[in-house]
Amino acid sequence: MAKTPEIGISVKKDDDFSEWFTQLMQKAALADVRYNVKGFPVYRPWAVKSMRKMCRLMEQLLEATGHEPLLMPLLIPESNFHKEADHVEGFTPEVFWVTERGDGITFEERYALRPTSETALYDMYSKWIRSYKDLPLKLYQQVSVYRHDTKMTRPFLRTREIHWIEAHDVFATAEEALEQVKEDMETTRKMIYDILAMPHIFFRRPQWDKFPGAVDTYAADVLMPSGKVLQLPSTHFIGQEFAKVFGVKFTDKDEKEKHGWITCYGPAHSRNYGALIAFHGDDKGLKIPWDVAAQHAVIVPIIFDDSKEAVLKKCNELNKKLVDSGYESTVDDRNYLNAGWKFNQWEMKGVPIRIEVGPKDLEKGEIVLFRRDIDEKKAVKETDLLKEIETIKRTFTKNMRDKADVLIKDNIVDCSSLDEVKKALESGKMVRTCMRSIEKDGEVDAAMIEKEFSAEVRGEWAFKNEKVFCDCVISGKPAKHVVYIAKSY
Amino acid sequence: MAKTPEIGISVKKDDDFSEWFTQLMQKAALADVRYNVKGFPVYRPWAVKSMRKMCRLMEQLLEATGHEPLLMPLLIPESNFHKEADHVEGFTPEVFWVTERGDGITFEERYALRPTSETALYDMYSKWIRSYKDLPLKLYQQVSVYRHDTKMTRPFLRTREIHWIEAHDVFATAEEALEQVKEDMETTRKMIYDILAMPHIFFRRPQWDKFPGAVDTYAADVLMPSGKVLQLPSTHFIGQEFAKVFGVKFTDKDEKEKHGWITCYGPAHSRNYGALIAFHGDDKGLKIPWDVAAQHAVIVPIIFDDSKEAVLKKCNELNKKLVDSGYESTVDDRNYLNAGWKFNQWEMKGVPIRIEVGPKDLEKGEIVLFRRDIDEKKAVKETDLLKEIETIKRTFTKNMRDKADVLIKDNIVDCSSLDEVKKALESGKMVRTCMRSIEKDGEVDAAMIEKEFSAEVRGEWAFKNEKVFCDCVISGKPAKHVVYIAKSY
Repeated sequence: MAKTPEIGISVKKDDDFSEWFTQLMQKAALADVRYNVKGFPVYRPWAVKSMRKMCRLMEQLLEATGHEPLLMPLLIPESNFHKEADHVEGFTPEVFWVTERGDGITFEERYALRPTSETALYDMYSKWIRSYKDLPLKLYQQVSVYRHDTKMTRPFLRTREIHWIEAHDVFATAEEALEQVKEDMETTRKMIYDILAMPHIFFRRPQWDKFPGAVDTYAADVLMPSGKVLQLPSTHFIGQEFAKVFGVKFTDKDEKEKHGWITCYGPAHSRNYGALIAFHGDDKGLKIPWDVAAQHAVIVPIIFDDSKEAVLKKCNELNKKLVDSGYESTVDDRNYLNAGWKFNQWEMKGVPIRIEVGPKDLEKGEIVLFRRDIDEKKAVKETDLLKEIETIKRTFTKNMRDKADVLIKDNIVDCSSLDEVKKALESGKMVRTCMRSIEKDGEVDAAMIEKEFSAEVRGEWAFKNEKVFCDCVISGKPAKHVVYIAKSY
Repeated sequence: MAKTPEIGISVKKDDDFSEWFTQLMQKAALADVRYNVKGFPVYRPWAVKSMRKMCRLMEQLLEATGHEPLLMPLLIPESNFHKEADHVEGFTPEVFWVTERGDGITFEERYALRPTSETALYDMYSKWIRSYKDLPLKLYQQVSVYRHDTKMTRPFLRTREIHWIEAHDVFATAEEALEQVKEDMETTRKMIYDILAMPHIFFRRPQWDKFPGAVDTYAADVLMPSGKVLQLPSTHFIGQEFAKVFGVKFTDKDEKEKHGWITCYGPAHSRNYGALIAFHGDDKGLKIPWDVAAQHAVIVPIIFDDSKEAVLKKCNELNKKLVDSGYESTVDDRNYLNAGWKFNQWEMKGVPIRIEVGPKDLEKGEIVLFRRDIDEKKAVKETDLLKEIETIKRTFTKNMRDKADVLIKDNIVDCSSLDEVKKALESGKMVRTCMRSIEKDGEVDAAMIEKEFSAEVRGEWAFKNEKVFCDCVISGKPAKHVVYIAKSY
């Protein structure tokens, strides 16, 4: 908590995103990468408070759609892990293994730190599910998962310890499972767009980019102001493969034994928070939507020796008024820092409202309100404070959404040739085009796109059934799918 | 979720606690020990909802006393772990080690799954703390910790994965740190007594039983109805030892560099929940205090063919009334189970209020309310429902506290000889007596007590300064401390 005054971020976000992000981590005290395990950042209170709000809102959304919470163990025996072939192949390279305890006593079997919990949970589902009456079974847990990603790590966005929720649902039929996928998409929209103000598209991923062991993966891509995409929650139509290897069976109404149809959904609040930073942040620092702000307001006294006492008294009085009305607010009365520094600091931290109280305001019965969504400052009558804040609360996230909508509206370009694809990607756009296949046999085409343009085929717009409008832009053969191509974080 | 009717618990709690507990786990669907890693039970929704409430209440208590949340990584490098000699000696036998990743790639250094986070966090504190202005620093995290306990494991009460909160505070002076210990004791009282209705005593533990690396450990022992004690949250006066090895230093007002004084506090909601089960449970099953009940009420329809529709309609109507008034309530409308079985099931699960609605009640405009605190049933006018529930809410936990107070009031016996100690312990009492030392040199005496009576010296009543009333009951030498001896879980 080095509180020695430091200036703002020294680079512009658009000029050097990486440096901007790194400075923000440290200067706004969001995360600390100096902890000595790579990819395992320390998350500090300001960020944890926001992540906690996201997490609780997501829990509410899940429980409102019939999910219940459970807690599975962190450790997964290697034998569980090996039951589903695609799964073990997909995840093994990233697994952290617990192999011994105490003073070098080796376990008979290695234990994986859960990279995700299918292979732990579905073993239990096989014990809990007996009859169609037990279905649907919709459970979730809020835990951390561990994946030894070998790419460059970055707090929140790419880490080896991920704070998330995973929901695993079992149904009697494929149709119900697909309906669940759509429900997960709607839950995602409520979180990512309504609450976090980030427009996004849900893609059905190409077969080479799906969750290992699933039939299909549906993932929300946020198109960032930079033109790159960032994957946020994904939901997987797992199908029956896991049910078969783990014995998740039920006796149906017709008294026949059948395998369950499974879906899983994995919204990660640590990654969502990273997305918030990257999407809404500006050269001054964070902008955080109202419902997930660490706190709603901060009151900064403008202190002169002769009026100090009266000003501080007024600050505390206003703060009490806000807190009594249900707002999270504090007074920044640290007397070893000047008001200007505090203004910058709180803008950097993205607190939605800053209230300034000085001796002149006091005389006029006024205060100054600064709102971070539109970066506007105005003097208001002290008696109007609650009314003004109510207005800000109502419009804050909407303003952020409106700005975001405009930002990405024109950023998707239809392309019918590789030349057009190239141009669009170079100018920071997302490409909409056609491909012959997003099954396994289309992977060679996607590999070419990745090699030539450092961009990825993100899949087809889920459940939209878009009409093909050109031949396969890569192979020249007749196209079967409208797909989207973008660079990614 | 095997919903096939099953009868209640087949043994009495006092006759066979272990079997009673095991059956309750399965029949009330609290935990499942069939997951194939020993000491890592699966926690099911009913228990998770209560643990979550406990956890959030504890977070509120901690934040009300100036703590802020953070998140430290799960993995601790072995080198951090080795910095404090007592700590490494105390914890090493219990540590789970991550040694490799992926397909057998060995890490250069082993990583411990956190058994507790001192050796991770204090390294960060040395980076964050510079000046007296940064103090006090009061942070906590809500995570799981991992300890390979070799004793018999039991869900909630003795596991290798523990769901807890750990608060770590740094102060400029020893006096402030000791005040924090007292604040932690008060926080514990609010949780364990006010909310969870379990009377307890805070002991300063003997030196041989303290947290490895601390100056002193203060721990809350709950005296169970069986006469055995169960340790609940402990708070540690860590002193300066860790600050010295991790370099937690600050420049004081006098411009001198000093080491911080540290405390840590570790309330575990999984263990608290286990204590609730063991303390308040009866032959029928769970009793859960109001504020941490998974839900407040359940409505059970008494169904006959000719009145089914009207009864279910009334149940849903009442349920809506309750939910709209802020109560967590559901209707148990499963039509393949009879009402009697449901009554037993919900009593076993310890739901505070059961509401029965049958055709006869409907005619009379009445409903039947059953409250689990005192196991009483009464018919009330439907129009009085909310008033009655308000009354139950107000008195529920108090009734449980009152019963608990009576239960343990006379269970502490003053003893001046080993004969008396023996008799008291045999009759299921806690012993109050005197010892010559609870420093390291008293350990031999305690070992004798443990060997002869299978009981433990729990320490002296914290901050009570009780007057010695006999010679050392073990050595016969002059006594210096009034101590308490009990059998423990």
